[in-house]
Amino acid sequence: MTGRFGFEVLHKDSRTNARLGMLHTAHGDVPTPVFMPVGTAGAVKAMPNDWLEALEARIILGNTYHLYLRPGHERIKRLGGLHRFMDWQGAILTDSGGYQVFSHRELRSISEDGVQFRSHLDGSKNFFNPEKVIEIQCALGSDIAMVLDDCTAYPAAYADAEASMEMSARWARKCRDQWRKQDDESRALFGIVQGSVYPDLRKRSAESLVELDFPGMAIGGLSVGEPKDLMYEIVECTVPLLRWDRPRYLMGVGTPQDLVRAVAMGVDMFDCVLPTRNARNGCLFTSEGRILIKNAIYAEDQGPLDPNCSCLTCRRYSRAYLRHLFLTGEHLSAVYNTLHNISFYLDMMRKIRESIQLDFFGNWLEPMEKGEIESR
Amino acid sequence: MTGRFGFEVLHKDSRTNARLGMLHTAHGDVPTPVFMPVGTAGAVKAMPNDWLEALEARIILGNTYHLYLRPGHERIKRLGGLHRFMDWQGAILTDSGGYQVFSHRELRSISEDGVQFRSHLDGSKNFFNPEKVIEIQCALGSDIAMVLDDCTAYPAAYADAEASMEMSARWARKCRDQWRKQDDESRALFGIVQGSVYPDLRKRSAESLVELDFPGMAIGGLSVGEPKDLMYEIVECTVPLLRWDRPRYLMGVGTPQDLVRAVAMGVDMFDCVLPTRNARNGCLFTSEGRILIKNAIYAEDQGPLDPNCSCLTCRRYSRAYLRHLFLTGEHLSAVYNTLHNISFYLDMMRKIRESIQLDFFGNWLEPMEKGEIESR
Repeated sequence: MTGRFGFEVLHKDSRTNARLGMLHTAHGDVPTPVFMPVGTAGAVKAMPNDWLEALEARIILGNTYHLYLRPGHERIKRLGGLHRFMDWQGAILTDSGGYQVFSHRELRSISEDGVQFRSHLDGSKNFFNPEKVIEIQCALGSDIAMVLDDCTAYPAAYADAEASMEMSARWARKCRDQWRKQDDESRALFGIVQGSVYPDLRKRSAESLVELDFPGMAIGGLSVGEPKDLMYEIVECTVPLLRWDRPRYLMGVGTPQDLVRAVAMGVDMFDCVLPTRNARNGCLFTSEGRILIKNAIYAEDQGPLDPNCSCLTCRRYSRAYLRHLFLTGEHLSAVYNTLHNISFYLDMMRKIRESIQLDFFGNWLEPMEKGEIESR
Repeated sequence: MTGRFGFEVLHKDSRTNARLGMLHTAHGDVPTPVFMPVGTAGAVKAMPNDWLEALEARIILGNTYHLYLRPGHERIKRLGGLHRFMDWQGAILTDSGGYQVFSHRELRSISEDGVQFRSHLDGSKNFFNPEKVIEIQCALGSDIAMVLDDCTAYPAAYADAEASMEMSARWARKCRDQWRKQDDESRALFGIVQGSVYPDLRKRSAESLVELDFPGMAIGGLSVGEPKDLMYEIVECTVPLLRWDRPRYLMGVGTPQDLVRAVAMGVDMFDCVLPTRNARNGCLFTSEGRILIKNAIYAEDQGPLDPNCSCLTCRRYSRAYLRHLFLTGEHLSAVYNTLHNISFYLDMMRKIRESIQLDFFGNWLEPMEKGEIESR
């Protein structure tokens, strides 16, 4: 563990709010805007580390909830921390587990003290509070930890969204206080803005978190069922409330189109299960649009998934072969598809960074307005 | 397609019947004794081609039955053959489908004309006869094709085994005649000795096939439920009946111990689903014996699967992590485990070849007699 956690804005795009930046972590520097592949249970599903490294992935996400339940954070700590456990040399961001608990609605009850929930694995009773999720993330050795938040469902009445946001803010303070006890400046704890789809609640949430001086801030509680336009509106009104000189992370979002639009608004960091989950379901992102590989149209298609992609999958295998692997239920279907989708996302982010650097990022927005972003 | 199919014996071990050889195929030379990983449906399950190549695998097996049913041999032919379809540059041996049809006993009926069977996928009616399995294997573009045989069940009454063996011999002749029509000396068709556990039937089967002048011969109908010792006896009495100057292939066998013993008897080629299937079930072969990775004893074991293995799995991941991947049902569990088991088998075969070359192969037999072969 060397060096202090930090972030620099290196360049701002001339026509949008997009910025090129660099995260400094104890496990290497991470150019932003960045997409973080999701490694739920200590592994990016179906994606060998060697291949992630070959794609120059610098940061991945781990899920506190899953790792806490299995194999357990104390076990991971005894095994030398999450980096060593999964042999990942790059940076790791862990969520707080709040969102997963939120997703298993029938299994949990929330109060000011924290969240009581039942394991989706064995039904055992468990309890998360601000102190606990910090303890877990410290045991995992996350480079970037997240505060415990109450992810408000959509739709939510204003009063409910307000109460939920305020509790999240109180939890954030407790998390920060607990985090400071470890006195380790190589790692960072990020706050999470809540407030559902109400701009004034988002504003109050952001202000209270800015006051707590988090080294990075996330926008949470989106992509939970609200219309796309509303999501964009909320991101657009929230981003300017976050400090310019600190990283901004839009949680759980999204499609290639979402990423471009949010980058234009000034977001630096993203995570989403979309590329990995879709890959396993045979839905592939390509420069010519999405492909459902099971479709009969590909049965004798000898071309690569994406003629503009240089990933190993596209270099070696035809659509016909990938369709065959999918239909026969081969593990390799998930593996090759995941490699391609992650490659597609990371490659897109690389091109986005390049275009910000060279001041033509605005060009990405035009085809998007016409619904053609996937052809970029 | 260049060059003629061929085989050379390069060296005979001084103390056993083991031989070092070289298969020449249109897709490269293959040092023997060789273990051929099984690629049932056009892919070695959970094993990326890149990794197979890194392990210097030179030949794999494809299953005619599976490929015929899905995606279909005609489709594969239109897509440029099996090598191109799965992007495998090395050699491919295909079985005839006889064994798979045999395995689905309730779905088939056999007569002199051939085998009527129902697809295990959709119940559709299909028919294999000698001409058909040759047609299929030619469409696939196999470097080594196999004759259609009737795999006798165990136990089988002498009269039944005899009738079955005789029918297999007649089918073998039909296959050979059909094969010769294609006039392609870069590929080879192997005969298959049957005769259950009756040495005199094996002898008659071998003699009739030797007379048909196959460029290679397999021993089939073993590892179908008979005791190990009986299997070894049959191999031992059958091998000397096969031509010295042609490759000998023991089908569907087996454990590391089986391979060593059969090599000592003069067998050159092997295939078996054991390393790949066991890998997916969390059973790993190591130089210190078999490991069931799910066992609690490995929960915090930071050591590699096999301290004497240099495969990527052993270089990067601990037993604790591999156990975790297995318990969480990650695709990567199958992938990393398969890589290790295939690596173990191919590495063992490489060491076996080396020891034959240097005339100390006999040393492999001693620990095996003591039941310690897995510690080699």
